[in-house]
Amino acid sequence: MCDFIKESSKESEVIVIGLSGGLNSTIDAYLSVEAVGKRNVFGLILPEKDSSIQNTRDATALAHVLDIDYRFIDITKVLKEIGIYRLSPSTFLIPRKRQEKWAKRQWEEMGGEDVFLKDLASSAKEKDFWEAQAYYRAKVRLRTILLYFHADLRRGLVLGNTNKTEILTGLYVKYGDELADIAPLVNIYKTQTREIAKKLKIPKAILEKTPSPDLVPGIDDEFILGLSYEDVDEILYCLENNLSVDLPEEKVNRVRKIMDKAPFRSLPTHVFPFDGEKYIIS
Amino acid sequence: MCDFIKESSKESEVIVIGLSGGLNSTIDAYLSVEAVGKRNVFGLILPEKDSSIQNTRDATALAHVLDIDYRFIDITKVLKEIGIYRLSPSTFLIPRKRQEKWAKRQWEEMGGEDVFLKDLASSAKEKDFWEAQAYYRAKVRLRTILLYFHADLRRGLVLGNTNKTEILTGLYVKYGDELADIAPLVNIYKTQTREIAKKLKIPKAILEKTPSPDLVPGIDDEFILGLSYEDVDEILYCLENNLSVDLPEEKVNRVRKIMDKAPFRSLPTHVFPFDGEKYIIS
Repeated sequence: MCDFIKESSKESEVIVIGLSGGLNSTIDAYLSVEAVGKRNVFGLILPEKDSSIQNTRDATALAHVLDIDYRFIDITKVLKEIGIYRLSPSTFLIPRKRQEKWAKRQWEEMGGEDVFLKDLASSAKEKDFWEAQAYYRAKVRLRTILLYFHADLRRGLVLGNTNKTEILTGLYVKYGDELADIAPLVNIYKTQTREIAKKLKIPKAILEKTPSPDLVPGIDDEFILGLSYEDVDEILYCLENNLSVDLPEEKVNRVRKIMDKAPFRSLPTHVFPFDGEKYIIS
Repeated sequence: MCDFIKESSKESEVIVIGLSGGLNSTIDAYLSVEAVGKRNVFGLILPEKDSSIQNTRDATALAHVLDIDYRFIDITKVLKEIGIYRLSPSTFLIPRKRQEKWAKRQWEEMGGEDVFLKDLASSAKEKDFWEAQAYYRAKVRLRTILLYFHADLRRGLVLGNTNKTEILTGLYVKYGDELADIAPLVNIYKTQTREIAKKLKIPKAILEKTPSPDLVPGIDDEFILGLSYEDVDEILYCLENNLSVDLPEEKVNRVRKIMDKAPFRSLPTHVFPFDGEKYIIS
Protein backbone atom coordinates (compact mmCIF):
# COMPACT_ATOMS: atom_id res chain seq x y z
CA MET A 1 0.00 0.00 0.00
CA CYS A 2 2.90 2.35 0.70
CA ASP A 3 4.27 1.56 -2.76
CA PHE A 4 0.91 2.44 -4.23
CA ILE A 5 0.73 5.75 -2.34
CA LYS A 6 4.29 6.65 -3.29
CA GLU A 7 3.83 5.76 -6.94
CA SER A 8 0.49 7.50 -7.41
CA SER A 9 1.54 10.71 -5.66
CA LYS A 10 4.91 11.22 -7.31
CA GLU A 11 3.68 14.07 -9.52
CA SER A 12 2.25 15.96 -6.54
CA GLU A 13 3.96 18.19 -4.00
CA VAL A 14 1.98 16.91 -1.07
CA ILE A 15 -0.70 14.42 0.00
CA VAL A 16 -3.71 16.08 1.60
CA ILE A 17 -5.75 13.98 4.06
CA GLY A 18 -8.82 14.86 6.08
CA LEU A 19 -8.18 13.71 9.65
CA SER A 20 -11.36 12.81 11.51
CA GLY A 21 -9.88 11.05 14.50
CA GLY A 22 -11.34 7.79 13.18
CA LEU A 23 -9.53 4.63 12.18
CA ASN A 24 -9.59 4.97 8.38
CA SER A 25 -8.01 8.40 8.25
CA THR A 26 -5.52 7.48 10.96
CA ILE A 27 -4.34 4.47 8.95
CA ASP A 28 -4.12 6.58 5.80
CA ALA A 29 -2.04 9.19 7.60
CA TYR A 30 0.36 6.57 8.99
CA LEU A 31 0.74 4.91 5.60
CA SER A 32 1.25 8.22 3.81
CA VAL A 33 3.98 9.33 6.18
CA GLU A 34 5.62 5.95 5.75
CA ALA A 35 5.29 6.23 1.97
CA VAL A 36 6.38 9.80 1.25
CA GLY A 37 7.75 11.19 4.50
CA LYS A 38 6.17 13.53 7.01
CA ARG A 39 7.11 16.68 5.12
CA ASN A 40 4.95 15.63 2.19
CA VAL A 41 1.75 14.97 4.10
CA PHE A 42 -0.71 17.70 5.00
CA GLY A 43 -3.63 17.12 7.37
CA LEU A 44 -6.93 18.96 7.55
CA ILE A 45 -9.04 18.73 10.70
CA LEU A 46 -12.50 20.05 9.87
CA PRO A 47 -14.87 19.76 12.81
CA GLU A 48 -18.25 21.47 13.12
CA LYS A 49 -20.55 21.96 16.05
CA ASP A 50 -21.94 18.40 16.00
CA SER A 51 -18.51 16.74 15.83
CA SER A 52 -17.33 14.68 18.76
CA ILE A 53 -14.76 16.58 20.77
CA GLN A 54 -12.88 13.36 21.39
CA ASN A 55 -12.49 12.77 17.64
CA THR A 56 -11.20 16.28 17.10
CA ARG A 57 -8.72 15.81 19.93
CA ASP A 58 -7.56 12.48 18.54
CA ALA A 59 -7.10 13.97 15.06
CA THR A 60 -5.04 16.82 16.44
CA ALA A 61 -2.95 14.46 18.57
CA LEU A 62 -2.34 12.34 15.47
CA ALA A 63 -1.01 15.31 13.51
CA HIS A 64 1.38 16.05 16.38
CA VAL A 65 2.49 12.44 16.82
CA LEU A 66 3.21 12.10 13.10
CA ASP A 67 4.71 15.61 13.14
CA ILE A 68 2.95 16.62 9.93
CA ASP A 69 1.83 20.07 8.87
CA TYR A 70 -1.90 20.54 9.39
CA ARG A 71 -4.71 23.09 9.63
CA PHE A 72 -7.53 23.05 12.11
CA ILE A 73 -10.57 24.73 10.59
CA ASP A 74 -13.91 24.83 12.36
CA ILE A 75 -16.42 24.70 9.51
CA THR A 76 -19.42 25.62 11.65
CA LYS A 77 -19.51 29.21 10.40
CA VAL A 78 -19.47 28.20 6.75
CA LEU A 79 -22.21 25.63 7.30
CA LYS A 80 -24.24 28.21 9.18
CA GLU A 81 -23.83 30.62 6.28
CA ILE A 82 -25.06 27.92 3.90
CA GLY A 83 -28.08 27.50 6.15
CA ILE A 84 -27.84 23.92 7.31
CA TYR A 85 -28.29 24.44 11.05
CA ARG A 86 -31.71 25.98 10.55
CA LEU A 87 -32.80 22.42 9.73
CA SER A 88 -32.21 21.01 13.20
CA PRO A 89 -33.15 22.23 16.68
CA SER A 90 -30.45 24.18 18.48
CA THR A 91 -28.26 21.94 20.58
CA PHE A 92 -26.69 24.83 22.45
CA LEU A 93 -26.17 23.84 26.09
CA ILE A 94 -27.78 20.44 25.60
CA PRO A 95 -25.45 17.70 26.89
CA ARG A 96 -24.06 15.37 24.22
CA LYS A 97 -25.63 12.28 25.79
CA ARG A 98 -29.06 13.86 25.53
CA GLN A 99 -28.43 14.86 21.91
CA GLU A 100 -27.49 11.27 21.12
CA LYS A 101 -30.66 9.93 22.68
CA TRP A 102 -32.77 12.46 20.82
CA ALA A 103 -31.16 11.62 17.45
CA LYS A 104 -31.67 7.90 17.99
CA ARG A 105 -35.32 8.42 18.87
CA GLN A 106 -35.79 10.52 15.73
CA TRP A 107 -34.17 7.74 13.75
CA GLU A 108 -36.61 5.17 15.12
CA GLU A 109 -39.53 7.48 14.33
CA MET A 110 -38.29 7.91 10.76
CA GLY A 111 -38.32 4.15 10.22
CA GLY A 112 -35.51 2.49 12.21
CA GLU A 113 -33.85 -0.14 10.05
CA ASP A 114 -35.54 1.26 6.95
CA VAL A 115 -33.95 4.69 7.33
CA PHE A 116 -30.71 3.71 5.64
CA LEU A 117 -32.53 1.89 2.83
CA LYS A 118 -34.77 4.90 2.21
CA ASP A 119 -31.72 7.13 2.26
CA LEU A 120 -29.90 4.98 -0.30
CA ALA A 121 -32.92 4.79 -2.56
CA SER A 122 -33.91 8.46 -2.07
CA SER A 123 -37.38 7.07 -1.59
CA ALA A 124 -38.52 8.83 1.58
CA LYS A 125 -41.76 10.74 1.23
CA GLU A 126 -41.40 12.95 4.32
CA LYS A 127 -39.98 16.48 4.20
CA ASP A 128 -38.28 15.96 7.59
CA PHE A 129 -36.38 13.08 6.05
CA TRP A 130 -35.17 15.13 3.09
CA GLU A 131 -34.04 17.86 5.44
CA ALA A 132 -32.07 15.39 7.52
CA GLN A 133 -30.35 14.17 4.35
CA ALA A 134 -29.55 17.69 3.19
CA TYR A 135 -28.23 18.43 6.68
CA TYR A 136 -25.66 15.67 6.94
CA ARG A 137 -24.66 15.52 3.29
CA ALA A 138 -23.75 19.21 3.10
CA LYS A 139 -21.24 18.72 5.91
CA VAL A 140 -19.46 15.92 4.09
CA ARG A 141 -19.45 17.70 0.75
CA LEU A 142 -18.12 20.92 2.23
CA ARG A 143 -15.22 18.97 3.71
CA THR A 144 -14.40 17.59 0.27
CA ILE A 145 -14.23 21.03 -1.31
CA LEU A 146 -12.00 22.24 1.50
CA LEU A 147 -9.67 19.28 0.97
CA TYR A 148 -9.47 20.21 -2.72
CA PHE A 149 -9.02 23.89 -1.98
CA HIS A 150 -6.02 23.16 0.20
CA ALA A 151 -4.70 20.54 -2.20
CA ASP A 152 -4.94 23.00 -5.12
CA LEU A 153 -3.12 25.65 -3.09
CA ARG A 154 -0.19 23.28 -2.58
CA ARG A 155 -0.38 21.34 -5.85
CA GLY A 156 -1.28 18.33 -3.77
CA LEU A 157 -3.54 15.39 -4.29
CA VAL A 158 -6.46 14.43 -2.10
CA LEU A 159 -6.21 11.04 -0.46
CA GLY A 160 -9.64 9.62 0.36
CA ASN A 161 -10.38 7.44 3.36
CA THR A 162 -13.26 5.34 2.07
CA ASN A 163 -12.93 1.58 2.50
CA LYS A 164 -14.44 -1.32 0.58
CA THR A 165 -17.21 -2.08 3.05
CA GLU A 166 -18.39 1.53 2.88
CA ILE A 167 -18.34 1.52 -0.92
CA LEU A 168 -20.26 -1.74 -1.26
CA THR A 169 -22.89 -0.75 1.30
CA GLY A 170 -23.23 2.83 0.08
CA LEU A 171 -22.08 4.16 3.46
CA TYR A 172 -20.74 7.44 2.08
CA VAL A 173 -22.10 10.60 0.55
CA LYS A 174 -22.49 10.78 -3.21
CA TYR A 175 -20.14 13.50 -4.45
CA GLY A 176 -18.86 13.87 -0.89
CA ASP A 177 -16.34 11.64 0.87
CA GLU A 178 -16.32 9.19 -2.08
CA LEU A 179 -14.40 11.79 -4.11
CA ALA A 180 -10.63 11.73 -3.98
CA ASP A 181 -7.62 11.38 -6.23
CA ILE A 182 -6.44 8.17 -4.62
CA ALA A 183 -8.05 5.94 -1.99
CA PRO A 184 -5.69 3.29 -0.62
CA LEU A 185 -8.37 1.60 1.50
CA VAL A 186 -10.94 1.23 -1.25
CA ASN A 187 -10.16 -2.44 -1.67
CA ILE A 188 -9.90 -3.20 2.04
CA TYR A 189 -12.83 -4.38 4.14
CA LYS A 190 -13.47 -2.56 7.40
CA THR A 191 -12.53 -5.60 9.50
CA GLN A 192 -9.24 -5.80 7.57
CA THR A 193 -8.42 -2.19 8.42
CA ARG A 194 -8.26 -3.28 12.06
CA GLU A 195 -5.59 -5.83 11.21
CA ILE A 196 -3.62 -3.16 9.40
CA ALA A 197 -4.01 -0.84 12.38
CA LYS A 198 -2.56 -3.47 14.69
CA LYS A 199 0.46 -3.94 12.43
CA LEU A 200 0.97 -0.18 12.34
CA LYS A 201 0.70 -0.09 16.14
CA ILE A 202 -2.01 2.56 16.02
CA PRO A 203 -3.13 3.59 19.53
CA LYS A 204 -5.70 1.25 21.03
CA ALA A 205 -8.10 4.10 21.80
CA ILE A 206 -8.48 4.76 18.07
CA LEU A 207 -8.49 1.10 17.09
CA GLU A 208 -11.31 0.33 19.50
CA LYS A 209 -13.35 3.45 18.81
CA THR A 210 -16.92 2.90 17.61
CA PRO A 211 -16.81 3.56 13.84
CA SER A 212 -18.99 6.56 13.03
CA PRO A 213 -19.41 9.15 10.31
CA ASP A 214 -19.58 11.65 13.21
CA LEU A 215 -22.25 13.73 11.51
CA VAL A 216 -25.13 13.42 13.97
CA PRO A 217 -24.48 12.62 17.66
CA GLY A 218 -25.19 8.97 18.46
CA ILE A 219 -25.64 7.76 14.89
CA ASP A 220 -22.71 5.40 14.27
CA ASP A 221 -21.94 3.06 11.37
CA GLU A 222 -23.29 -0.19 12.84
CA PHE A 223 -26.41 1.59 14.06
CA ILE A 224 -27.01 2.81 10.49
CA LEU A 225 -26.24 -0.55 8.91
CA GLY A 226 -28.26 -2.48 11.49
CA LEU A 227 -25.47 -5.07 11.69
CA SER A 228 -21.98 -5.44 13.09
CA TYR A 229 -19.05 -4.92 10.70
CA GLU A 230 -17.96 -8.51 11.37
CA ASP A 231 -21.28 -9.76 10.03
CA VAL A 232 -21.42 -7.30 7.13
CA ASP A 233 -17.91 -8.14 5.95
CA GLU A 234 -18.40 -11.87 6.23
CA ILE A 235 -21.60 -11.64 4.20
CA LEU A 236 -20.10 -9.28 1.61
CA TYR A 237 -17.09 -11.52 1.19
CA CYS A 238 -19.20 -14.67 0.79
CA LEU A 239 -21.61 -13.05 -1.65
CA GLU A 240 -18.74 -11.67 -3.70
CA ASN A 241 -17.03 -15.05 -3.88
CA ASN A 242 -20.15 -17.20 -4.28
CA LEU A 243 -19.63 -18.92 -0.94
CA SER A 244 -22.46 -19.98 1.32
CA VAL A 245 -22.86 -17.80 4.40
CA ASP A 246 -22.92 -19.35 7.83
CA LEU A 247 -25.05 -16.59 9.38
CA PRO A 248 -28.81 -16.17 9.97
CA GLU A 249 -30.82 -15.65 6.78
CA GLU A 250 -32.20 -12.42 8.24
CA LYS A 251 -28.75 -10.83 8.36
CA VAL A 252 -27.90 -11.96 4.84
CA ASN A 253 -31.15 -10.47 3.57
CA ARG A 254 -30.38 -7.20 5.26
CA VAL A 255 -27.04 -6.98 3.47
CA ARG A 256 -28.65 -7.98 0.17
CA LYS A 257 -31.23 -5.22 0.56
CA ILE A 258 -28.51 -2.67 1.30
CA MET A 259 -26.34 -3.75 -1.65
CA ASP A 260 -29.37 -3.65 -3.88
CA LYS A 261 -29.90 0.03 -3.15
CA ALA A 262 -26.23 1.04 -2.94
CA PRO A 263 -24.97 2.93 -6.01
CA PHE A 264 -21.93 0.73 -6.71
CA ARG A 265 -22.26 -2.99 -7.28
CA SER A 266 -18.52 -3.26 -7.62
CA LEU A 267 -15.58 -1.01 -6.84
CA PRO A 268 -15.65 2.23 -8.77
CA THR A 269 -12.81 2.74 -11.18
CA HIS A 270 -13.48 6.36 -12.06
CA VAL A 271 -12.66 7.81 -8.69
CA PHE A 272 -9.89 5.54 -7.65
CA PRO A 273 -7.24 4.78 -10.24
CA PHE A 274 -6.27 1.82 -8.14
CA ASP A 275 -5.81 -1.72 -9.30
CA GLY A 276 -6.26 -2.93 -5.80
CA GLU A 277 -6.16 -6.69 -6.18
CA LYS A 278 -2.48 -6.99 -5.50
CA TYR A 279 -2.83 -4.93 -2.34
CA ILE A 280 -5.51 -7.14 -0.81
CA ILE A 281 -4.51 -8.49 2.55
CA SER A 282 -5.38 -12.10 3.11
CA MET B 1 -34.25 15.85 -25.04
CA CYS B 2 -37.47 16.73 -23.25
CA ASP B 3 -38.39 13.04 -23.24
CA PHE B 4 -35.03 12.27 -21.67
CA ILE B 5 -35.46 14.92 -18.98
CA LYS B 6 -38.99 13.79 -18.21
CA GLU B 7 -38.08 10.12 -18.08
CA SER B 8 -34.95 10.52 -15.98
CA SER B 9 -36.55 12.86 -13.44
CA LYS B 10 -39.79 10.97 -12.85
CA GLU B 11 -38.71 9.71 -9.41
CA SER B 12 -37.82 13.23 -8.24
CA GLU B 13 -40.05 15.99 -6.93
CA VAL B 14 -38.21 18.74 -8.73
CA ILE B 15 -35.37 19.51 -11.13
CA VAL B 16 -32.75 21.84 -9.65
CA ILE B 17 -30.72 23.94 -12.12
CA GLY B 18 -27.99 26.47 -11.51
CA LEU B 19 -28.83 29.54 -13.59
CA SER B 20 -25.76 31.50 -14.63
CA GLY B 21 -27.28 33.75 -17.25
CA GLY B 22 -25.32 31.85 -19.90
CA LEU B 23 -26.60 29.89 -22.84
CA ASN B 24 -26.23 26.33 -21.51
CA SER B 25 -28.20 26.86 -18.33
CA THR B 26 -30.81 28.92 -20.17
CA ILE B 27 -31.39 26.10 -22.66
CA ASP B 28 -31.58 23.57 -19.84
CA ALA B 29 -34.13 25.69 -17.99
CA TYR B 30 -36.30 26.07 -21.11
CA LEU B 31 -36.14 22.36 -21.86
CA SER B 32 -36.89 21.39 -18.26
CA VAL B 33 -39.96 23.60 -18.08
CA GLU B 34 -41.10 22.14 -21.38
CA ALA B 35 -40.46 18.62 -20.08
CA VAL B 36 -41.90 18.67 -16.57
CA GLY B 37 -43.74 21.98 -16.21
CA LYS B 38 -42.71 25.17 -14.46
CA ARG B 39 -43.86 24.00 -11.02
CA ASN B 40 -41.31 21.21 -11.08
CA VAL B 41 -38.25 23.28 -11.91
CA PHE B 42 -36.25 25.13 -9.27
CA GLY B 43 -33.51 27.61 -10.16
CA LEU B 44 -30.51 28.67 -8.13
CA ILE B 45 -28.71 31.90 -8.96
CA LEU B 46 -25.37 31.85 -7.14
CA PRO B 47 -23.28 34.90 -7.96
CA GLU B 48 -20.20 36.06 -6.08
CA LYS B 49 -18.26 39.28 -6.15
CA ASP B 50 -16.44 38.54 -9.43
CA SER B 51 -19.62 37.54 -11.30
CA SER B 52 -20.81 39.70 -14.15
CA ILE B 53 -23.79 41.78 -13.08
CA GLN B 54 -25.30 41.33 -16.54
CA ASN B 55 -25.23 37.54 -16.16
CA THR B 56 -26.90 37.71 -12.77
CA ARG B 57 -29.57 40.01 -14.19
CA ASP B 58 -30.15 37.70 -17.14
CA ALA B 59 -30.45 34.67 -14.86
CA THR B 60 -32.98 36.45 -12.68
CA ALA B 61 -34.96 37.63 -15.69
CA LEU B 62 -34.99 34.06 -16.99
CA ALA B 63 -36.48 32.74 -13.75
CA HIS B 64 -39.21 35.38 -14.02
CA VAL B 65 -39.89 34.77 -17.70
CA LEU B 66 -40.21 31.02 -17.12
CA ASP B 67 -42.13 31.75 -13.92
CA ILE B 68 -40.22 29.14 -11.94
CA ASP B 69 -39.42 29.10 -8.23
CA TYR B 70 -35.85 30.20 -7.57
CA ARG B 71 -33.44 31.40 -4.91
CA PHE B 72 -30.88 34.13 -5.33
CA ILE B 73 -27.94 33.46 -3.02
CA ASP B 74 -24.82 35.62 -3.08
CA ILE B 75 -22.06 33.15 -2.20
CA THR B 76 -19.41 35.82 -1.59
CA LYS B 77 -19.66 35.53 2.20
CA VAL B 78 -19.22 31.75 2.17
CA LEU B 79 -16.24 31.99 -0.18
CA LYS B 80 -14.74 34.69 2.02
CA GLU B 81 -15.18 32.46 5.04
CA ILE B 82 -13.39 29.65 3.18
CA GLY B 83 -10.58 32.09 2.49
CA ILE B 84 -10.48 32.30 -1.28
CA TYR B 85 -10.45 36.08 -1.70
CA ARG B 86 -7.22 36.40 0.25
CA LEU B 87 -5.62 34.87 -2.85
CA SER B 88 -6.35 37.80 -5.17
CA PRO B 89 -5.90 41.55 -4.82
CA SER B 90 -8.98 43.41 -3.66
CA THR B 91 -11.07 44.62 -6.58
CA PHE B 92 -13.16 46.93 -4.44
CA LEU B 93 -13.89 50.11 -6.39
CA ILE B 94 -11.84 49.00 -9.39
CA PRO B 95 -13.95 49.26 -12.57
CA ARG B 96 -14.77 45.95 -14.25
CA LYS B 97 -12.96 46.91 -17.46
CA ARG B 98 -9.73 47.49 -15.56
CA GLN B 99 -10.14 44.17 -13.71
CA GLU B 100 -10.54 42.40 -17.05
CA LYS B 101 -7.39 43.97 -18.43
CA TRP B 102 -5.47 43.06 -15.30
CA ALA B 103 -6.61 39.42 -15.39
CA LYS B 104 -5.70 39.09 -19.06
CA ARG B 105 -2.24 40.53 -18.43
CA GLN B 106 -1.76 38.10 -15.54
CA TRP B 107 -2.81 35.30 -17.86
CA GLU B 108 -0.21 36.28 -20.45
CA GLU B 109 2.47 36.45 -17.76
CA MET B 110 1.53 32.98 -16.53
CA GLY B 111 2.09 31.55 -20.00
CA GLY B 112 -0.67 32.68 -22.38
CA GLU B 113 -1.78 29.77 -24.51
CA ASP B 114 0.02 27.35 -22.21
CA VAL B 115 -2.01 28.36 -19.16
CA PHE B 116 -4.93 26.09 -20.00
CA LEU B 117 -2.63 23.17 -20.82
CA LYS B 118 -0.74 23.59 -17.57
CA ASP B 119 -4.03 23.81 -15.71
CA LEU B 120 -5.32 20.59 -17.30
CA ALA B 121 -2.09 18.75 -16.60
CA SER B 122 -1.62 20.25 -13.11
CA SER B 123 1.93 20.80 -14.23
CA ALA B 124 2.53 24.43 -13.23
CA LYS B 125 5.52 24.96 -11.00
CA GLU B 126 4.56 28.42 -9.71
CA LYS B 127 2.75 29.00 -6.44
CA ASP B 128 0.80 31.90 -7.98
CA PHE B 129 -0.56 29.49 -10.53
CA TRP B 130 -1.73 27.00 -7.92
CA GLU B 131 -3.41 29.78 -6.00
CA ALA B 132 -5.24 30.94 -9.12
CA GLN B 133 -6.48 27.37 -9.64
CA ALA B 134 -7.59 27.02 -6.03
CA TYR B 135 -9.33 30.39 -6.36
CA TYR B 136 -11.55 29.63 -9.33
CA ARG B 137 -12.17 25.96 -8.62
CA ALA B 138 -13.51 26.58 -5.11
CA LYS B 139 -16.20 28.84 -6.56
CA VAL B 140 -17.43 26.17 -8.96
CA ARG B 141 -17.33 23.40 -6.37
CA LEU B 142 -19.19 25.44 -3.80
CA ARG B 143 -21.98 26.01 -6.33
CA THR B 144 -22.25 22.26 -6.84
CA ILE B 145 -22.71 21.57 -3.15
CA LEU B 146 -25.34 24.30 -2.93
CA LEU B 147 -27.21 22.76 -5.86
CA TYR B 148 -27.15 19.43 -4.03
CA PHE B 149 -28.13 20.99 -0.72
CA HIS B 150 -31.22 22.52 -2.28
CA ALA B 151 -31.96 19.40 -4.31
CA ASP B 152 -31.75 17.23 -1.17
CA LEU B 153 -34.08 19.60 0.69
CA ARG B 154 -36.72 19.14 -2.00
CA ARG B 155 -35.98 15.54 -3.00
CA GLY B 156 -34.93 16.92 -6.33
CA LEU B 157 -32.26 15.98 -8.80
CA VAL B 158 -29.48 18.22 -10.02
CA LEU B 159 -29.45 18.93 -13.73
CA GLY B 160 -25.96 19.78 -14.98
CA ASN B 161 -25.27 22.23 -17.78
CA THR B 162 -22.02 20.83 -19.18
CA ASN B 163 -21.93 20.28 -22.92
CA LYS B 164 -19.89 17.91 -25.08
CA THR B 165 -17.29 20.45 -26.17
CA GLU B 166 -16.56 21.32 -22.55
CA ILE B 167 -16.24 17.67 -21.57
CA LEU B 168 -13.91 16.77 -24.43
CA THR B 169 -11.67 19.81 -23.91
CA GLY B 170 -11.67 19.58 -20.11
CA LEU B 171 -13.30 22.99 -19.82
CA TYR B 172 -14.92 22.30 -16.44
CA VAL B 173 -13.81 21.79 -12.89
CA LYS B 174 -13.08 18.28 -11.69
CA TYR B 175 -15.63 17.45 -8.99
CA GLY B 176 -17.28 20.79 -9.68
CA ASP B 177 -19.67 21.62 -12.53
CA GLU B 178 -19.08 18.19 -14.11
CA LEU B 179 -21.11 16.63 -11.29
CA ALA B 180 -24.84 16.26 -11.75
CA ASP B 181 -27.55 13.64 -11.78
CA ILE B 182 -28.47 14.23 -15.39
CA ALA B 183 -26.87 16.42 -18.06
CA PRO B 184 -28.99 16.79 -21.19
CA LEU B 185 -26.34 18.74 -23.09
CA VAL B 186 -23.49 16.33 -22.48
CA ASN B 187 -23.75 14.93 -25.97
CA ILE B 188 -24.28 18.27 -27.69
CA TYR B 189 -21.44 20.37 -29.10
CA LYS B 190 -21.35 24.04 -28.13
CA THR B 191 -22.12 25.16 -31.67
CA GLN B 192 -25.15 22.85 -31.68
CA THR B 193 -26.49 24.45 -28.52
CA ARG B 194 -26.87 27.66 -30.53
CA GLU B 195 -29.10 25.88 -33.00
CA ILE B 196 -31.21 24.54 -30.16
CA ALA B 197 -31.41 28.03 -28.66
CA LYS B 198 -32.73 29.41 -31.93
CA LYS B 199 -35.44 26.76 -32.08
CA LEU B 200 -36.40 27.54 -28.50
CA LYS B 201 -36.51 31.26 -29.36
CA ILE B 202 -34.15 32.12 -26.56
CA PRO B 203 -33.52 35.90 -26.35
CA LYS B 204 -30.83 37.09 -28.74
CA ALA B 205 -28.89 38.83 -25.96
CA ILE B 206 -28.24 35.46 -24.34
CA LEU B 207 -27.69 33.62 -27.60
CA GLU B 208 -25.03 36.10 -28.69
CA LYS B 209 -23.34 36.47 -25.32
CA THR B 210 -19.62 35.63 -25.20
CA PRO B 211 -19.44 32.15 -23.59
CA SER B 212 -17.58 32.39 -20.30
CA PRO B 213 -17.22 30.48 -17.05
CA ASP B 214 -17.65 33.91 -15.40
CA LEU B 215 -15.10 33.12 -12.70
CA VAL B 216 -12.47 35.76 -13.35
CA PRO B 217 -13.35 39.03 -15.13
CA GLY B 218 -12.27 38.99 -18.79
CA ILE B 219 -11.35 35.32 -18.98
CA ASP B 220 -13.88 33.78 -21.37
CA ASP B 221 -14.08 30.31 -22.95
CA GLU B 222 -12.49 31.08 -26.31
CA PHE B 223 -9.73 33.08 -24.62
CA ILE B 224 -8.94 30.03 -22.46
CA LEU B 225 -9.13 27.57 -25.36
CA GLY B 226 -7.15 29.84 -27.68
CA LEU B 227 -9.59 29.05 -30.50
CA SER B 228 -13.14 29.85 -31.54
CA TYR B 229 -15.86 27.33 -30.71
CA GLU B 230 -16.57 26.93 -34.45
CA ASP B 231 -12.99 25.76 -34.97
CA VAL B 232 -12.87 23.60 -31.85
CA ASP B 233 -16.13 21.82 -32.69
CA GLU B 234 -15.20 21.22 -36.30
CA ILE B 235 -11.88 19.73 -35.24
CA LEU B 236 -13.39 17.63 -32.43
CA TYR B 237 -16.04 16.31 -34.78
CA CYS B 238 -13.54 15.41 -37.49
CA LEU B 239 -11.12 13.76 -35.06
CA GLU B 240 -13.95 11.78 -33.47
CA ASN B 241 -15.19 10.55 -36.84
CA ASN B 242 -11.81 10.04 -38.50
CA LEU B 243 -12.41 12.75 -41.07
CA SER B 244 -9.72 15.02 -42.41
CA VAL B 245 -9.90 18.57 -41.09
CA ASP B 246 -9.97 21.51 -43.46
CA LEU B 247 -8.35 23.93 -41.01
CA PRO B 248 -4.76 25.09 -40.39
CA GLU B 249 -2.52 22.40 -38.88
CA GLU B 250 -1.71 24.78 -36.00
CA LYS B 251 -5.33 24.83 -34.84
CA VAL B 252 -5.66 21.07 -35.10
CA ASN B 253 -2.53 20.62 -33.03
CA ARG B 254 -3.86 22.97 -30.40
CA VAL B 255 -7.01 20.87 -30.03
CA ARG B 256 -4.99 17.67 -30.00
CA LYS B 257 -2.82 19.04 -27.20
CA ILE B 258 -5.87 20.05 -25.20
CA MET B 259 -7.60 16.68 -25.67
CA ASP B 260 -4.43 14.94 -24.71
CA LYS B 261 -4.43 16.62 -21.32
CA ALA B 262 -8.20 16.61 -20.75
CA PRO B 263 -9.37 13.96 -18.26
CA PHE B 264 -12.04 12.37 -20.47
CA ARG B 265 -11.19 10.91 -23.86
CA SER B 266 -14.84 10.08 -24.37
CA LEU B 267 -18.08 11.01 -22.71
CA PRO B 268 -18.22 9.97 -19.08
CA THR B 269 -20.86 7.44 -18.22
CA HIS B 270 -20.53 7.55 -14.48
CA VAL B 271 -21.86 11.03 -14.02
CA PHE B 272 -24.42 11.11 -16.75
CA PRO B 273 -26.65 8.09 -17.06
CA PHE B 274 -27.46 9.23 -20.55
CA ASP B 275 -27.39 7.16 -23.67
CA GLY B 276 -27.10 10.28 -25.70
CA GLU B 277 -26.71 8.97 -29.21
CA LYS B 278 -30.38 9.04 -30.02
CA TYR B 279 -30.65 12.64 -28.87
CA ILE B 280 -27.89 13.92 -31.12
CA ILE B 281 -29.07 16.68 -33.37
CA SER B 282 -27.85 16.39 -36.92
